[in-house]
Amino acid sequence: MSEEALSVTETRESVVDSLAKGKFKRVRRILRELTATEVVELLNQLDPEQQQLVWNQIGDEEEQGILTELDPALAERLLTNSDDHPDTLEPEAEDDEDVSPITQVREALEAGRFKRALKILGKLHPSQAAGLLEALPPAERSSIWSRLDSARAGQILVHLREEVRASLALEMSDSELLDAAHQLDLDDLVDLIQALPFGPGRQLLLSMDVKTRQQLADMLSYPEESAGGLMNIDHISVRADVRVSSILRYLRLLEDLPDHTDKLMVVDRENRYLGVLRLSRLVTSPADGLVSDVMDGDFKALDVLMSSQEVQRQFEDLDMLSAAVTSPDGILLGRITVDDVMDSIREDSERAIMGMAGLDDEADMFAPVLTSTRRRSVWLGCNLITAFLAASVIGQFQGALEQIVALAVLMPVVASMGGIAGSQTLTLVIRGLALGQVDTGNLKVLLVKELGIGTLNGLLWAVLVAVVAFLWFGSLGIGWVIGLAILINLVCAVLAGLLIPLILRRFGIDPALAGSMVLMAVTDVVGFSSFLGLATVFLL
Amino acid sequence: MSEEALSVTETRESVVDSLAKGKFKRVRRILRELTATEVVELLNQLDPEQQQLVWNQIGDEEEQGILTELDPALAERLLTNSDDHPDTLEPEAEDDEDVSPITQVREALEAGRFKRALKILGKLHPSQAAGLLEALPPAERSSIWSRLDSARAGQILVHLREEVRASLALEMSDSELLDAAHQLDLDDLVDLIQALPFGPGRQLLLSMDVKTRQQLADMLSYPEESAGGLMNIDHISVRADVRVSSILRYLRLLEDLPDHTDKLMVVDRENRYLGVLRLSRLVTSPADGLVSDVMDGDFKALDVLMSSQEVQRQFEDLDMLSAAVTSPDGILLGRITVDDVMDSIREDSERAIMGMAGLDDEADMFAPVLTSTRRRSVWLGCNLITAFLAASVIGQFQGALEQIVALAVLMPVVASMGGIAGSQTLTLVIRGLALGQVDTGNLKVLLVKELGIGTLNGLLWAVLVAVVAFLWFGSLGIGWVIGLAILINLVCAVLAGLLIPLILRRFGIDPALAGSMVLMAVTDVVGFSSFLGLATVFLL
Repeated sequence: MSEEALSVTETRESVVDSLAKGKFKRVRRILRELTATEVVELLNQLDPEQQQLVWNQIGDEEEQGILTELDPALAERLLTNSDDHPDTLEPEAEDDEDVSPITQVREALEAGRFKRALKILGKLHPSQAAGLLEALPPAERSSIWSRLDSARAGQILVHLREEVRASLALEMSDSELLDAAHQLDLDDLVDLIQALPFGPGRQLLLSMDVKTRQQLADMLSYPEESAGGLMNIDHISVRADVRVSSILRYLRLLEDLPDHTDKLMVVDRENRYLGVLRLSRLVTSPADGLVSDVMDGDFKALDVLMSSQEVQRQFEDLDMLSAAVTSPDGILLGRITVDDVMDSIREDSERAIMGMAGLDDEADMFAPVLTSTRRRSVWLGCNLITAFLAASVIGQFQGALEQIVALAVLMPVVASMGGIAGSQTLTLVIRGLALGQVDTGNLKVLLVKELGIGTLNGLLWAVLVAVVAFLWFGSLGIGWVIGLAILINLVCAVLAGLLIPLILRRFGIDPALAGSMVLMAVTDVVGFSSFLGLATVFLL
Repeated sequence: MSEEALSVTETRESVVDSLAKGKFKRVRRILRELTATEVVELLNQLDPEQQQLVWNQIGDEEEQGILTELDPALAERLLTNSDDHPDTLEPEAEDDEDVSPITQVREALEAGRFKRALKILGKLHPSQAAGLLEALPPAERSSIWSRLDSARAGQILVHLREEVRASLALEMSDSELLDAAHQLDLDDLVDLIQALPFGPGRQLLLSMDVKTRQQLADMLSYPEESAGGLMNIDHISVRADVRVSSILRYLRLLEDLPDHTDKLMVVDRENRYLGVLRLSRLVTSPADGLVSDVMDGDFKALDVLMSSQEVQRQFEDLDMLSAAVTSPDGILLGRITVDDVMDSIREDSERAIMGMAGLDDEADMFAPVLTSTRRRSVWLGCNLITAFLAASVIGQFQGALEQIVALAVLMPVVASMGGIAGSQTLTLVIRGLALGQVDTGNLKVLLVKELGIGTLNGLLWAVLVAVVAFLWFGSLGIGWVIGLAILINLVCAVLAGLLIPLILRRFGIDPALAGSMVLMAVTDVVGFSSFLGLATVFLL
């Protein structure tokens, strides 16, 4: 739909039509094209109800200009009934602190009070606003999203999870998206383009000016999970043979430095990285010194292809606020700041926890039911395979089960104790591997220790469970068999908990994701077969 | 044992005795008391083997002084056979990159090459060295620890997990510990004191000078998991009515600023917090301006009692590098820097993942087997209760199990599918609660959505499992019953996954810790009882 200049009548008809259909976004688009005088003219041609609806679509900035030209009586009526007018708020909204922002926004949206909803959102930091939007059902999310101005939308986009980000970005018109994108730092822009489907992403890329496009293309060429994917190019670089006083003069000309500038990068004539000049050093240095005298020449740069895990570890170990990123031949490419590293740590930890349940941390909590069902069914399918594996093991011992029904009653106890004991070792080893604290150098010591724990806990619980089983079913044989089975399963579980992550890693599979399911298969199979097998041998 | 000045003969006897007993630490302590000349005198009285052993105990710094006074032939022999001499390294040690530091250190220790082991450790950053120490079995850990000088030991202590930290600190003599403690920042010192048992911790506190002790006592009064527990007091504060040029002059006098200083704190005459002056702003401001003109007055301080989770969120949301901490009445108390926040995020994420398996993230990976067994048995005991709960449910249906053995074979499938489906919802809700994205405001929407997913996945897998069960056992009845049971269990599991974390939180229990075990109890009970119950009704 092209938004050509419409005549007054056409405008009025178009607005009335849109109001009737509830297309408020279209109304706002029309209003944006009009001068204050034209809006007043339009308002005067509408009935009171339509007037109020139109009024609620007018932004805070435009309100003042229109009010001055409006009939005072009408102005007062509109203001009094406006959806963000204090008088129209229900009394309970006053104890705002007890009501969460989610509830507040949803109540406002339900009552059609868009201005009020926007105001609540406006009070939040963009990342908090992003969190709030994610917590809204998709329809409400879109409804409030379409009312945000582009600058704010851009700031919020950066902080959204990938799936929500892509879907909201696609709801924007090309020009809105472009406006929003222009508010972003290059690294955030890279993230946005990567989150979009190929077509719109490419279009956004092409709409940038040549220089930005070149820089974006460079940055897009690095893997997301690498130093290149985390870096930004807003650093300030200086030469080593310059005086401190000149640097200070130069900085004063800039008036403001890029966010998170704690150090300047020192380079040579070919832009080769030489070291850093800390601001804290700069302000304490004599003005007539040379940069080369006060710079830190031994502050290591990060290679652009370093993995993001390694970047995280470097930042944590060396307590860095920012670090230079260089190409393999030492050319300064950009810098990584600690805020992005912190986000990356948080994302990885979320991914790990969600991944253990077979969930995607970047997914929309309110994705359509069918989409979510399909995603989750994958993990259920994997589990079904291991469940049938366990069932087939039990199936081997139908004879024993037919004769002694107590076996069927007790067998889940054996399997579940093994599962818990194994998952403890598994968790310990997965963390050890991630931190580099478990490797061939100390594997044997760990193995001995874990086997010791498995055996001791095995003995402890074997005795206890044996006693309970004996008391329950009055059979000494069942007590012996279940005790022995628990001991066997706990020792095997500990062994499996230690070996499974090592084996999975050898095959390039993340043990944090698949480890617990594989472990469960092992402990089920060992638990059922040892218990039912021993029973077959000794009790039949 | 008091280390009074000993005569030459006494010294020699004492050294020979200690060497024979393998008490190298004692040898080093004796050596430290001697001048270079006395060491040479001592060496000359020993046999070649003893000479070499003593030599290996001498620190790098003292070596040079002793070498000049030593008989050249003896000096050369000692150096050639020294345990860090390149010639004595096995050839494969050259491809250091393939061999992990853990292996390298352990091999060196095993061969008695302590100097070499110390050198490997010396190349690492303190936090990496701490990680390496944690990865060593306790005996080797102590052996290398006793050889570290106090300064280095202090830096490493900070980065150790609590349990390892406390045990290594207790291995040090009082004076060594005090030496090490003097290297630490106040916030690290607070952590160390908190990690020690009450007695030694108090002793360490009392050994500080009056001012430090007062500051420590203040900081110890805040909960560990609060802004007060994360803060340090090394900030620089300035007054608002001073000129920028004076600040620059003042900073130049300091020569170096505290680590991670990206901003100065602006206070009034009563030390009340007014705002911050960023270094990046300072270096770009005209020198004749006032601090009040260039400071950020709207940069919020954190309340000293704010929870560490909230501090993390603020740092992440507002991308801060440091923030002021104030008392409730606005007095500046200290500042929190992003490196400590990052550590706190990492620790919380580790605690969450370890906690899910009932493990303590601060525990020593190589704690004595009995200690570890006792700790882990708690979780196994909790699990045993739920396992017997499930068993008792099965026990209700012994009649059905006796008649149809296929029920015993298939029942774990029903329970485990419910467990997986429930854990997906549980994980989603726990994350949502932690991020504030799930609350009463959107609970109903989420409930409807999750029930939808549970029903759809329930139908999908019910059909599949029913078909498999029918093909396996040739009974249409069993197919119907297991299908229905799976549908029921998946819907209940989703409901439980949603409600359990909410209920646990209401009772003040962390849902991340106890959630999955409670869920498992529910899905087992519902799974077994629905499957066996339906079978009893329809198949008997």
